[in-house]
Amino acid sequence: MKVKVFVKLKEGVLDPQGQTILGSIGRMGYDFATEVRVGKFFEIEVKDKSCEKELEKISADLLSNPIIEEYSIEFVD
Amino acid sequence: MKVKVFVKLKEGVLDPQGQTILGSIGRMGYDFATEVRVGKFFEIEVKDKSCEKELEKISADLLSNPIIEEYSIEFVD
Repeated sequence: MKVKVFVKLKEGVLDPQGQTILGSIGRMGYDFATEVRVGKFFEIEVKDKSCEKELEKISADLLSNPIIEEYSIEFVD
Repeated sequence: MKVKVFVKLKEGVLDPQGQTILGSIGRMGYDFATEVRVGKFFEIEVKDKSCEKELEKISADLLSNPIIEEYSIEFVD
């Protein structure tokens, strides 16, 4: 079974990486983008759905920085 | 309108970051995970859906490394 954990910066936290990419998109001659924010995701193969509580724990303690980041967990199949 | 571009390593490409995280999960005392793979995603605010072709171009040329990475595009709302 696969689980996806998405981690991204909290609303209001400056995203310099996203701003740099937005600038590059403009320099490539495109004007369709008005904002870019960057996140990461983890695809974790798990035995079954009984690991939900542990997943919350590693998402908060290992995969994200709770001060500036938020996470969401999605069971895929 | 928001678009998400997901970028991850192609199947078969070694993911040392994922392996390191898998090891950390084990050292935290959990055994529910058997594999971890890491990817990134870009949330792009766009004016409308007419930018699909340009999005493909920047996904291939700017946001991913086509040699080792693959991307997918998802219009969110």
